[in-house]
Amino acid sequence: MTLDLSLIPDGGLHWLAASGEHAGIVLSSRIRLARNLAGFAFPPRAREGERLRVLHQLRSAAGRVPSLRDAACIRVDECTPQERQLLHERHLVSRELAGLEHGPGALGVAAGAVLLTGEAGVMVNEEDHIRLQVFRSGFDIAGALRESERLDRELGAEVPYAWHREFGYLTACPTNTGTGMRASVLIHLPGLVLTQEIAKVLQGLQHMGLTYRGLYGEGSDVLGNLFQISNQTTLGRSEDELADQLVRVVRRVIEREEEARRVLLRDAGYIIEDKLWRAFGTLRHARTLPADEAMNLLSGVRLAAGLNLLPGLSVYTLNKLLIFSQTAHLAHAEGRVLTEGEANLARAKYVRTVLANEAKLPG
Amino acid sequence: MTLDLSLIPDGGLHWLAASGEHAGIVLSSRIRLARNLAGFAFPPRAREGERLRVLHQLRSAAGRVPSLRDAACIRVDECTPQERQLLHERHLVSRELAGLEHGPGALGVAAGAVLLTGEAGVMVNEEDHIRLQVFRSGFDIAGALRESERLDRELGAEVPYAWHREFGYLTACPTNTGTGMRASVLIHLPGLVLTQEIAKVLQGLQHMGLTYRGLYGEGSDVLGNLFQISNQTTLGRSEDELADQLVRVVRRVIEREEEARRVLLRDAGYIIEDKLWRAFGTLRHARTLPADEAMNLLSGVRLAAGLNLLPGLSVYTLNKLLIFSQTAHLAHAEGRVLTEGEANLARAKYVRTVLANEAKLPG
Repeated sequence: MTLDLSLIPDGGLHWLAASGEHAGIVLSSRIRLARNLAGFAFPPRAREGERLRVLHQLRSAAGRVPSLRDAACIRVDECTPQERQLLHERHLVSRELAGLEHGPGALGVAAGAVLLTGEAGVMVNEEDHIRLQVFRSGFDIAGALRESERLDRELGAEVPYAWHREFGYLTACPTNTGTGMRASVLIHLPGLVLTQEIAKVLQGLQHMGLTYRGLYGEGSDVLGNLFQISNQTTLGRSEDELADQLVRVVRRVIEREEEARRVLLRDAGYIIEDKLWRAFGTLRHARTLPADEAMNLLSGVRLAAGLNLLPGLSVYTLNKLLIFSQTAHLAHAEGRVLTEGEANLARAKYVRTVLANEAKLPG
Repeated sequence: MTLDLSLIPDGGLHWLAASGEHAGIVLSSRIRLARNLAGFAFPPRAREGERLRVLHQLRSAAGRVPSLRDAACIRVDECTPQERQLLHERHLVSRELAGLEHGPGALGVAAGAVLLTGEAGVMVNEEDHIRLQVFRSGFDIAGALRESERLDRELGAEVPYAWHREFGYLTACPTNTGTGMRASVLIHLPGLVLTQEIAKVLQGLQHMGLTYRGLYGEGSDVLGNLFQISNQTTLGRSEDELADQLVRVVRRVIEREEEARRVLLRDAGYIIEDKLWRAFGTLRHARTLPADEAMNLLSGVRLAAGLNLLPGLSVYTLNKLLIFSQTAHLAHAEGRVLTEGEANLARAKYVRTVLANEAKLPG
């Protein structure tokens, strides 16, 4: 199959808009619900035929749900490795569903698919039969929760969920049982990293029942000072309680980040300014940019924009750079597979062109 | 005394013009002649009264020499430490005459002075009574030699030089005895440094009777891939022979540098391009720039200009940046003494302003 991104509403990038509360610090908010169909083995234990039956049943149910009727359905297992990588870079499918855990050339998960609307997605045959996700730009867990609950009700009216009156929603991995919900924010914390307070903050999360991951979920490295903060437990409390707890703690983290930025400017103003302008200078002029370096430099430029040192540069431009400077996106733009070296050249060219066009700078 | 730079013809920066042969690689050519007056102790052994008599005799002689009649006479020992530093940064007085060898706050050498015309200078009461220097922009040892010989003849007709029929011109240090001549070029060799051939080239110089130093003469570090190559011996051969030997060897060094640049572009084109553009990006945007780092980054940008990667930037602009980004020059521009931290801020501002105004770049 050739992935036609134009079929996906908003290209699946609604969450990139840099709108919403605290959009300079919180890139996006996400609610993910894990659900399974009664009467079928969980995907990791199901043969291909059974997985296909799950997929067909869900597609047919989605056709009866108004909000999902016009969703694009992408058979991830029929995509090329590059296309799956691209969907993953766009946060539309998990690393697992894209089959990326077994190396860049591995097959996608059999009968794996994703239904995509503007701000919601339904992953099929990932670890659970259904992983329903709603993304919002900025800090809007409440909005994402409302929308995900609505979709969940509508879909649940069309298919029988595996549910237990004592445990709640049953899932392949017991850590998701109960509400099956994970609420998370993708948050940029360069101030806390530079003031070296980040370890204390991350430790604090755990005492509050929260956890953190890198940009691309479980097991991914923290790059560019971007963290995904989410609830750790799913059982024993309601969705609202879990979401409220996350919102309360994240609000406190945002305050601490803002305080850290004030302290940096007050105590080390020109050192920070220098560091961030140098990051900008490298992004603006380098001719080859490895992915990790680009991410870390973009983090610096994002902080500079947040501190009003780079008033000409919008948070939306930075969000766009973050996603579109990734290897599969660059390869898609060039219409061919790129080696790592070629991707580094293409990345440098893409980044410096965007910055040349979109950053209106003082001397 | 307050140093009035406007009294010095061309500000003493005639050699900065980036004109002349191979000006992209050879910044300047210099002939220096060491002379002493008969009947006076060499300066290191002379008391202040004797040194003052030497100075008065030389000033009065200079008044009778047409090319020196309008020279600015600067009493280096009456300058502030910052002014002496500035004269040294401009290569108009030696480290020794400026008294900088004993720390930045030390006194200038007693009765030390310099007479300055557009392209020539006469240091008085340095290690020898007279250090006559002629600078030319680019690679022009022959021109500098002709001019220095003319001045030497004219001055020698007015004062009695200490001369011995067997040893030639007598000097305070025996290594200068004979012709008293040092011919040197200030040469930029980043290609040979990057291809790691520089050690072999520098070693080769010694077999040819030449030696090298850093940007600011004896004992100074090599910074920014800038080398001063000069003759090591002054005795036993004529001025012309010594100068011809230097010219022959430097011509060969220039060829090797050009060859190294071709090899770099051929074998590592985009790595080099990336390295040099990053240097440009840092200079163009940094908010604080230590002196050594600035020199090394400017070396990269100079190489980029030489490889036609930065077609909008002139060699003259780079020469100007090299001199005017130094601490005493920055302090002079700001009209006050700067701490190291303040100088780093002022340097970054000066460099990025010049580059913003003078580098017309493609995206």
